[in-house]
Amino acid sequence: MEREFALISLKGLTKPFDLNNLTIGRMDLIARCISSAFFISYAIRRNVIFNIFLYGPPDPPKNIILCGEELEGISPDEKGICRKISEVLKKSKNLKLNEIKKIEKGIYVGRRSFENFIKQKAGEKNIIYLHPKGKDIREYEFKKSFLFVLGDQKGLPEKTEKLLENLGAEKVSLGKIEYLASHCIVIVNNELDRRGL
Amino acid sequence: MEREFALISLKGLTKPFDLNNLTIGRMDLIARCISSAFFISYAIRRNVIFNIFLYGPPDPPKNIILCGEELEGISPDEKGICRKISEVLKKSKNLKLNEIKKIEKGIYVGRRSFENFIKQKAGEKNIIYLHPKGKDIREYEFKKSFLFVLGDQKGLPEKTEKLLENLGAEKVSLGKIEYLASHCIVIVNNELDRRGL
Repeated sequence: MEREFALISLKGLTKPFDLNNLTIGRMDLIARCISSAFFISYAIRRNVIFNIFLYGPPDPPKNIILCGEELEGISPDEKGICRKISEVLKKSKNLKLNEIKKIEKGIYVGRRSFENFIKQKAGEKNIIYLHPKGKDIREYEFKKSFLFVLGDQKGLPEKTEKLLENLGAEKVSLGKIEYLASHCIVIVNNELDRRGL
Repeated sequence: MEREFALISLKGLTKPFDLNNLTIGRMDLIARCISSAFFISYAIRRNVIFNIFLYGPPDPPKNIILCGEELEGISPDEKGICRKISEVLKKSKNLKLNEIKKIEKGIYVGRRSFENFIKQKAGEKNIIYLHPKGKDIREYEFKKSFLFVLGDQKGLPEKTEKLLENLGAEKVSLGKIEYLASHCIVIVNNELDRRGL
């Protein structure tokens, strides 16, 4: 089954950036999330779609979409992944609102807000977000194709949580501890692997 | 309960290295494992001890030990972690065999082989290694304080697996898929968190 993730990065840079300084805009965090979403030993998960919503300077919002089905020439290290992101951002100037542009096999970019994206997805997919008070993922019943929404180091903004609630999104928990976003993705993938989803 | 990990890195560099090129010796992989072992949201796991055994050029073996209890000034990004490792290696010259030297709070380095280390641990701890044919971790009964042994991108060398078997180590599985070492650590930590271990 397809596994779709959406990561909201409030500080994530929206122009090409210095690959030797990835903590600016916490691009390192974004890279680790992508690594967790796609990489297993010697292979890429072909059934994963990963959406990044960048809200940092100087040109927000930018929405980068990675599709495992077609993804090529990417390695699991932070710098390698950030090189790809930076290249994508270089080609993302002058996009019209809601226009989605193909950059290379499996990589797309658009000027699209998370709000716009999620409203469209709400009809199509079961939307899930991680919350300490949510239902334990090990007991959660995945009903149809789903979309996991994740926040960056600050978690999800309050207004995003409200939007998700209004759209009927469901809360899921990974246990008692609050994990880094990239680690949440690993745990979610492991649970889905075990269920053969 | 204390959680101890040991990562064997056959190519991991044993002298200070270029922080802008972390894929040489796969120092990026080592950094991700450390990140997975110690970091949760806004905190460091104080009950984790992480041993790295570096067997790459030019001066193997080197054993770096990180103790969560005392660890300070470390961030979860690859470059930040590798900066620490490189600084440790700078101070690791002229070590005598099996000598362990304190570098700073929570960080030690020694010229010690994995074989020597594990033979000593065998009496003290329940040794576990990840193997696709092992017992499912969700059903595994952790008996006493334990030590998880992990390989790098090539897995564990055959002779290491034999040594572990001879020492009575137990095989544990995380499901049907072979994961990256750093992702294995996340899954193991999640399982232990759930059990309150």
